[in-house]
Amino acid sequence: MTNNALNKLGRYLRETQLLGSIHSTLYWDQNTTMPAGAASWRGEQLGLLAKVLHARQSSDEFDDLIKEAKEELQIQSVIDQKDALQKGRNIELLEIELSRQKKLDSKLVVEIATAQTDGYALWQEAKTKNDYKRFAPALKKLITLRQEQAKQLDEPRSCWETLAQPYEPDLTIKRLNELFDPLRTRLPELVNKAKTASSKNTINWDLTERSQLKLCERLLNKWGRDKHITCLGRSPHPFSITLGPQDFRLTTRVVPEQPFSCFLATAHEWGHSLYEQGLPSQSHQWFAWPLGQATSMAVHESQSLFWENRVARSRAFSDSFWVNFSNEGAPVQSGLDLWRSINPLVPGLNRVEADEVSYGIHILIRTDLEIALLQDGLEVWDLPNEWNKRYKELLGVIPKNDSEGCLQDVHWSEGAFGYFPSYLLGHLISAQLSEAMSIALKEEGYRSDDPLGECILEGSEHKLLNWLRKEVHHHGRQVNAEQLVEKVTGRRLASNAFLNYLENKLEMLTSSS
Amino acid sequence: MTNNALNKLGRYLRETQLLGSIHSTLYWDQNTTMPAGAASWRGEQLGLLAKVLHARQSSDEFDDLIKEAKEELQIQSVIDQKDALQKGRNIELLEIELSRQKKLDSKLVVEIATAQTDGYALWQEAKTKNDYKRFAPALKKLITLRQEQAKQLDEPRSCWETLAQPYEPDLTIKRLNELFDPLRTRLPELVNKAKTASSKNTINWDLTERSQLKLCERLLNKWGRDKHITCLGRSPHPFSITLGPQDFRLTTRVVPEQPFSCFLATAHEWGHSLYEQGLPSQSHQWFAWPLGQATSMAVHESQSLFWENRVARSRAFSDSFWVNFSNEGAPVQSGLDLWRSINPLVPGLNRVEADEVSYGIHILIRTDLEIALLQDGLEVWDLPNEWNKRYKELLGVIPKNDSEGCLQDVHWSEGAFGYFPSYLLGHLISAQLSEAMSIALKEEGYRSDDPLGECILEGSEHKLLNWLRKEVHHHGRQVNAEQLVEKVTGRRLASNAFLNYLENKLEMLTSSS
Repeated sequence: MTNNALNKLGRYLRETQLLGSIHSTLYWDQNTTMPAGAASWRGEQLGLLAKVLHARQSSDEFDDLIKEAKEELQIQSVIDQKDALQKGRNIELLEIELSRQKKLDSKLVVEIATAQTDGYALWQEAKTKNDYKRFAPALKKLITLRQEQAKQLDEPRSCWETLAQPYEPDLTIKRLNELFDPLRTRLPELVNKAKTASSKNTINWDLTERSQLKLCERLLNKWGRDKHITCLGRSPHPFSITLGPQDFRLTTRVVPEQPFSCFLATAHEWGHSLYEQGLPSQSHQWFAWPLGQATSMAVHESQSLFWENRVARSRAFSDSFWVNFSNEGAPVQSGLDLWRSINPLVPGLNRVEADEVSYGIHILIRTDLEIALLQDGLEVWDLPNEWNKRYKELLGVIPKNDSEGCLQDVHWSEGAFGYFPSYLLGHLISAQLSEAMSIALKEEGYRSDDPLGECILEGSEHKLLNWLRKEVHHHGRQVNAEQLVEKVTGRRLASNAFLNYLENKLEMLTSSS
Repeated sequence: MTNNALNKLGRYLRETQLLGSIHSTLYWDQNTTMPAGAASWRGEQLGLLAKVLHARQSSDEFDDLIKEAKEELQIQSVIDQKDALQKGRNIELLEIELSRQKKLDSKLVVEIATAQTDGYALWQEAKTKNDYKRFAPALKKLITLRQEQAKQLDEPRSCWETLAQPYEPDLTIKRLNELFDPLRTRLPELVNKAKTASSKNTINWDLTERSQLKLCERLLNKWGRDKHITCLGRSPHPFSITLGPQDFRLTTRVVPEQPFSCFLATAHEWGHSLYEQGLPSQSHQWFAWPLGQATSMAVHESQSLFWENRVARSRAFSDSFWVNFSNEGAPVQSGLDLWRSINPLVPGLNRVEADEVSYGIHILIRTDLEIALLQDGLEVWDLPNEWNKRYKELLGVIPKNDSEGCLQDVHWSEGAFGYFPSYLLGHLISAQLSEAMSIALKEEGYRSDDPLGECILEGSEHKLLNWLRKEVHHHGRQVNAEQLVEKVTGRRLASNAFLNYLENKLEMLTSSS
């Protein structure tokens, strides 16, 4: 069976992927190495590549190649149905993406790109100077343009839902409420419980930069990092990025007076990277096709959160790793010490540094507010008040200023609306997957109540990874996030696994003192 | 006066430059950060960019733009002759480049790009494993492809000369022999003289990596490095590269048991970078035009060698800087101590680590061998023998293996034939420029026999830089290397200034003990 049209389409996709990965390489360099003075030229380089990429992704040539491949596939499907199904799913995903790109007015695409760059610059300025009104007009502009984009895309969805699709395919607000509603009542209760039980878990020591980086290296070695295909860099905001089929990069950062920030960021980004490493993209051929990509940002976050919270922040991990911290000068005398320090349970204003119990509340607030901004008429001028009101209600803390309030995160400044829920959905997915993993490990012979912990304590994290590779990673975009969860756990995604886990952990933490 | 056609051509060049600088960014990343496993994908990225660049540089559109700009210029030249002359030189250089690119088959361009990436990877492997035969077929392939390239270019020059043009415009083997012949006889004599006089100048101590990098930082700060537009990285083979009008990068490396290697590499690469920083390219507009580029690699090397040898290895520099080495634990008690240690005068096998007296011999050997490989029928299989034979003859040392022999340098693995002579020409140019600089400094009031040293001793290296900026850097490609030397020094380039300098230094070093 020859696949002429499919092969031609594959070659086209491969060249697009090469260009896309060049764009990513420039992004990596910009965030890890580039001197500040080079920003303007780098902006032009990225702009040029974005223009070329958009042209390729919306071209008539691309359209024709997809059509021809689809016809060829219809003939082939009689012969090998399973292979054809996979290829068919690839074509389907390409068609969706092409139709999206084609519906967009290229003038709007450029306007959005410019508004993103301007928005980011103004946000940085506003945040530094704690001056929301500098940023507000740019935010207003981004909202208007993104609303226009949703209108042009003309999908049978609301504005916010349309914009959330690239992050969470098939997500609806109705479904989001089903999943988040139990959290809206239960999370504030848990935060209060944590507050009364252990308010003294603050950290009043620090580690040198050298020590923190040494601990990160040790962690990655323990977790089987292959230096041949990975590298760890430094950047102001940690991230993970794939630059080629054998090129997985991650970054971390050192935050003064936060001795676990660097370590946990490394664990988190490594989780993202492991997902990318496990995608069905291990040959050049697959790397270019949609099925070789991550299925959603929530699934991505479920993987990073798993390694950060279920592993690195577990009691078992602390028991097996605390000596390393102690050797670097951390004042911890036991696994219990490290475990309590790395799980502070003090609700704060900062999402990124939040503990597991309060983290979800940060997301609920952002999700509600961005839906309100995009489609329910919340005015940008009222955002700071609304933000502060909700923080007081749900977390009992009030930002001193907008820099630690509604200017805290980068997402909106780049016009990225619809991304925030992925973090919390990631927590839910991670919890439900962990339950399924526990069952699997019990079947493998781990007999305790906490088979994950048993595994971690004996240094067998590779068993957790193997399970994730086998059950989760390799599907790529064959299934969406919810289908994946149901396939792996046998149940529809829900919030109870996450809430059970939190209650348990809180119980253990507060009773361990 | 409107310059419509010139402006259109400028915009075209600017986009080419953006793409070229993206290519350079990938190269930087490949050599400083990229994990080894990513080499094959990176090769494809570079190949794709090379293809796109070649298409742009040989397109009919480009051809038309040049023609139109030329016509426009002929009308304009009546009005402002000086400006028109500069623009005319730009057009002339573009025409030369276009005609070269047009002659090349695009298939060959891609083949060469791929062979370079493969060659580099295989060379690294062969060097590590000391196994020349792993690399030999790749070298053979590179030679064949480059021979084919010279054939397609069809210039009134020999194969090697044709390939050397991009590095040394207008260079001929005849002229090269005129310049190098006096060195062929005199350098081995000087090496012998050095050998008998001071065989005890070996270094039997080392510095930690941390100390070495600290000394490099101190050096760059002393020499006025602006962190806003520069960055210092690490790579197996030190290099300097410009990635944008405000983005100057350089790398260094730490070599065990060679405590000055890292320091001198930094001084060397910083000299390259200073030249690039001083080119008439400080606005985006100029960055894209030929006149904003370095005129030849020999001139480039003259600048790096100047800062490495005439400054960092001078007695005056040692006198002013030795305390920093001492503070980092180096067993040097005085400027004289440091100066003698940093000028060991022990002929060795390694070009990069060679002292100034034997350095030229390394280049003579490589130049002869690559001319023989490219156009006189030397077979790649015979290269190790020929290499070793010449080292024995000219330097009296024999490599223990090919890793420290013919696998030592990266150049041939990337198909860069014709580059090596630039190093030695750079020594000649640096020496002749230094004489002119001395005269200028005397006129400024420095009265000693060694006005450069006087300047360095008082910490006024910026005066040397200012002279270079004013006399050398800003010409760009307005003149070629030989024209530049004649313009600045009033004499045709020759080897005597270099030989005089060497004899003098040797005298001082051997009498100082």
